[in-house]
Amino acid sequence: MEGVHAIHNGQVILAKDAVVPVTLREVQFGFSTYEALRVVKGHAVHLDDHLIRLENSCRGIKLSHPFTKEQISTWVYNLIDVDAIEQASLRIQLYGGKDPQLFVLASSLLSYPDEYYTQGVGAITFAGERLYPSCKTGNLLLNYMALEQARSLGCFEALLVDRHHKVLEGTRSNFFAFKGKELYTASDEQVLLGITRDRVLKAAVRLGFRIVFDAPDADEVGKGVFDEAFISSTSMAAMPLSRIDSRNFSGSYEKTLAIMRLVRSWELDD
Amino acid sequence: MEGVHAIHNGQVILAKDAVVPVTLREVQFGFSTYEALRVVKGHAVHLDDHLIRLENSCRGIKLSHPFTKEQISTWVYNLIDVDAIEQASLRIQLYGGKDPQLFVLASSLLSYPDEYYTQGVGAITFAGERLYPSCKTGNLLLNYMALEQARSLGCFEALLVDRHHKVLEGTRSNFFAFKGKELYTASDEQVLLGITRDRVLKAAVRLGFRIVFDAPDADEVGKGVFDEAFISSTSMAAMPLSRIDSRNFSGSYEKTLAIMRLVRSWELDD
Repeated sequence: MEGVHAIHNGQVILAKDAVVPVTLREVQFGFSTYEALRVVKGHAVHLDDHLIRLENSCRGIKLSHPFTKEQISTWVYNLIDVDAIEQASLRIQLYGGKDPQLFVLASSLLSYPDEYYTQGVGAITFAGERLYPSCKTGNLLLNYMALEQARSLGCFEALLVDRHHKVLEGTRSNFFAFKGKELYTASDEQVLLGITRDRVLKAAVRLGFRIVFDAPDADEVGKGVFDEAFISSTSMAAMPLSRIDSRNFSGSYEKTLAIMRLVRSWELDD
Repeated sequence: MEGVHAIHNGQVILAKDAVVPVTLREVQFGFSTYEALRVVKGHAVHLDDHLIRLENSCRGIKLSHPFTKEQISTWVYNLIDVDAIEQASLRIQLYGGKDPQLFVLASSLLSYPDEYYTQGVGAITFAGERLYPSCKTGNLLLNYMALEQARSLGCFEALLVDRHHKVLEGTRSNFFAFKGKELYTASDEQVLLGITRDRVLKAAVRLGFRIVFDAPDADEVGKGVFDEAFISSTSMAAMPLSRIDSRNFSGSYEKTLAIMRLVRSWELDD
């Protein structure tokens, strides 16, 4: 469900008027960047980190725009105020070009049933590499198709596998796998630098795990080399995987859930 | 310049109302297909071929929609009638998802100065591979960025070079290079199957050239192995290249222009 209002280049508008012309080249070409974040208790969670990443995404694809982090931050809180938002998912959507357009949009807080965490969710692997992996852009067809494939097979997420058979990340999440006390994940330059990924890494270290920046090999995942695996995102925090393709994971997902609880506890910290 | 009207799912609307919600997932993810075609003397050039390719693009990315070729063809001619279009560039833009949306949009006919043909235009090479190369989709960030790079260097087009150093195609064109009486170009499955590419190949055969389906190697292009090169598209027909990166081509581009004239002569044939 959408909010009543939205923000367009600093102006409060009705959410239904948050539209773009089909003829706009930047819409047609996906020359855009975005951020998705959570509002909890009227607080935009890790907003500064999201705004920094938005800047990084823009830099990565050479999308220049006149909007400062301070302005966007003000607009986010304007929207929270005008619609008296207690909790929501927010999207900051920025189109580039000659006449850059920035929208702030609210929708119902994306959250998941408790059993997703206690029982885990299924994932498939999907061959494909993202363009400009460190940037959140409108170039998302691979993600869309991979997730559609996962859903058609009753799975929650698709994990993208690169030409070297490495499992890099999910279509809307980062990917982690445990081998005992070691936590494996792709290195920074290969994936989207998730705001939550960052917290997951900190939580894992705090809990005594050793981080290995080496993306899990898809074949090794299939052979059962890893004893627990999970995905992370703003909305999921850390969500355990009950299976990847035909490889099942069982147990109580203790390691993942310990990380999840720690990450969630930091949401109101900044 | 845009037309006065547009078509949305069969309905005539004002062109300014051809908008999509920023919140629409298929807009955000570029889950869309499109075609660009020419209207000349009130005739939608090679419309049937464009509609077949649109279907192929949809099939390639599993975009299902209820619109038939016959319906879309009717809508194209409705727009031509309602705005009394003599000549124009048309875009058919289709968003998928639960509620597919098809737009037909008109703008001023895209055409180029005569000296582009007599003197040729410059191109750069740009490393990058398109996802689903045979489909025209909204996943176009690579094309956007490559073309921006070309323009910033005073060039007209960017040629995409794959991991094997092969020059496959331009960001909005197909690519061809001559070695004497042999015409080299990428094989069908590597590139967008241009409607004009098809005509170029027929014209080349008719003019006595032998087609070699082997994409030119970027290093060989740089070393001067090819004596003439050109790009093709609906709007360009066949346009000679005066240089690719630092490799200059000179002469009167006779071979390219003979093909161009033949391709243009077929525009009103179907």
